[in-house]
Amino acid sequence: MNFFDESGRKPIVTVLVGDRPVIGLERVAALADIRETDAAGLPMALRGADVLYLWDFFSGAVEPAWKHADALTWLHVAAAGVDKLLFPGLIDSAVTVTNAHGVFDLPMAEYVLGAMLFSAKGFGQTRDLQHNRVWARRTTRNIAGARVLIVGTGSIGRCTARLLTAAGADVNGAGRVARTDDPDFGTVHSSSRLTAVVGAYDYLVLVAPLTAQTEGMVSAEVLAAMAPTAVLINVGRGKLVDEAALVRTLDDGGIAGAVLDTFAVEPLPPASPLWGMEQVLISPHMASDADSWLDDLALQFERNFLTWHAGKALPHQVDKVLGYVPTSGADR
Amino acid sequence: MNFFDESGRKPIVTVLVGDRPVIGLERVAALADIRETDAAGLPMALRGADVLYLWDFFSGAVEPAWKHADALTWLHVAAAGVDKLLFPGLIDSAVTVTNAHGVFDLPMAEYVLGAMLFSAKGFGQTRDLQHNRVWARRTTRNIAGARVLIVGTGSIGRCTARLLTAAGADVNGAGRVARTDDPDFGTVHSSSRLTAVVGAYDYLVLVAPLTAQTEGMVSAEVLAAMAPTAVLINVGRGKLVDEAALVRTLDDGGIAGAVLDTFAVEPLPPASPLWGMEQVLISPHMASDADSWLDDLALQFERNFLTWHAGKALPHQVDKVLGYVPTSGADR
Repeated sequence: MNFFDESGRKPIVTVLVGDRPVIGLERVAALADIRETDAAGLPMALRGADVLYLWDFFSGAVEPAWKHADALTWLHVAAAGVDKLLFPGLIDSAVTVTNAHGVFDLPMAEYVLGAMLFSAKGFGQTRDLQHNRVWARRTTRNIAGARVLIVGTGSIGRCTARLLTAAGADVNGAGRVARTDDPDFGTVHSSSRLTAVVGAYDYLVLVAPLTAQTEGMVSAEVLAAMAPTAVLINVGRGKLVDEAALVRTLDDGGIAGAVLDTFAVEPLPPASPLWGMEQVLISPHMASDADSWLDDLALQFERNFLTWHAGKALPHQVDKVLGYVPTSGADR
Repeated sequence: MNFFDESGRKPIVTVLVGDRPVIGLERVAALADIRETDAAGLPMALRGADVLYLWDFFSGAVEPAWKHADALTWLHVAAAGVDKLLFPGLIDSAVTVTNAHGVFDLPMAEYVLGAMLFSAKGFGQTRDLQHNRVWARRTTRNIAGARVLIVGTGSIGRCTARLLTAAGADVNGAGRVARTDDPDFGTVHSSSRLTAVVGAYDYLVLVAPLTAQTEGMVSAEVLAAMAPTAVLINVGRGKLVDEAALVRTLDDGGIAGAVLDTFAVEPLPPASPLWGMEQVLISPHMASDADSWLDDLALQFERNFLTWHAGKALPHQVDKVLGYVPTSGADR
């Protein structure tokens, strides 16, 4: 028995669509009245809506339309990062926020493993030499036994830790709360102590969300403390890193290289010196996007909707103050 | 008590050196008389020698000098593949042959995993787009659940199978003897049935040695039976593949791509059309060469020598008729 059975009406689900048509709403449509809208129509479509489903998750249309959300109880965003979504009116409201928790874990973990091997095995230089038809044998690094520090201990970080460990790497974490007995990371350092600990690692992997606390966390000081043989892998958010300091560090040989999937400004501007650095791979914010990602996102909303419609608590709710879904080692 | 203790003389170890100085002979030198030689000096240096150590493992100098090997009991080659070494006089002799069994297992397994992720995550195209400063998001494949057929069930194939399985892939093998209960591969197909089975796999990985039986095993027919979405990874020997048929298959879109570390002729001639194929990564026969490889090879010979000097049986002897070290699932 749920609210809508009692009230005798169907809930209203407003779907913000963008360039891509929304998919996978068949089962939802049987139980709800669906209003598809673009950003311009959002204020009108929000009035009386119980649920807002942000299929077009790069839209900034929610905040300007927020005053029309007079019946909203749940907002679902088909993305992992909610940094562009959260604003004071939403944070202060009673609206539950869920995101694409878990959907991107495996693709991102695999992308990080691929990025490590891309660096360790010299595939970038191999590709560049291929273009000039140059045969030049070199030696390469093994990832077995490589020391990896993953910044971000949520579900993506944990999935990444498990995959890298399975592939032979020696993985620790960095997060809000330091601890030594984490099931996936063993030691978790406090992110505030990155400068003190980062020098011991061969790879620094960023999967953290962008929050007031994490913005710029990989500062000039952290970069200076990294080993000159170390590699930075950023699949989190560009603004986790002081990008100007990163350019200087790479230029000076302060670190050996980087695989960057996210940037302070996206698309990365053509004038950025990062494009031309042979020891850097520029990847266009695609680490999370496996072939099945749209289906996976649609299926997740369907499952969440059925849970919500049954009157049950939604899993993996975003902590709107923290800015992400809190997880613990046990939450896997 | 061993032969040399009884005879009162030190054994003679002839070392064929090439462009690289031989390393790691300190403990051997305490127990043996060492003769370092180049190819020209090999006939003289072989006379009376008990052991021949091929540090320069790409040399073809052994067969022409073979008639001078009047006291030889053991030949060690610091390489995995012995296809360029074996000749009738050696095969018919009583000389024991050992190779770099095991030294290359982990680097090659990691290279194969890196090659799979390079293909699955589109890193080649990403690198090419980077050169033109083009930001173009695409979706990528996961390797979790990908079906992989590894041709070659020796120690390199087994190490590769275990690593790929740990990373989530679904791995089978192909070898001389079909079976269904292999500890690393589960099902092992007979290599003679490749055409019949290869269509079910997303990746075809070649780590087999080059022998009369394996030469050309990936024929035009096998390539035609592969799925159009499949990727070929060859870190074994170039001549396992009909290279002309491979070029045609890639040109026609018969398979999706390839990561090739070995070629029929090496270095790959500049005129080869493979260099210019964007769906192919040309890697200069370096899959086995981790930074530590020379140290690892030297340490292996030292260990083998101490075993031999103590009068014990050498482990992992090459079957000179088969052309490789036979292994079983239990031999790990």
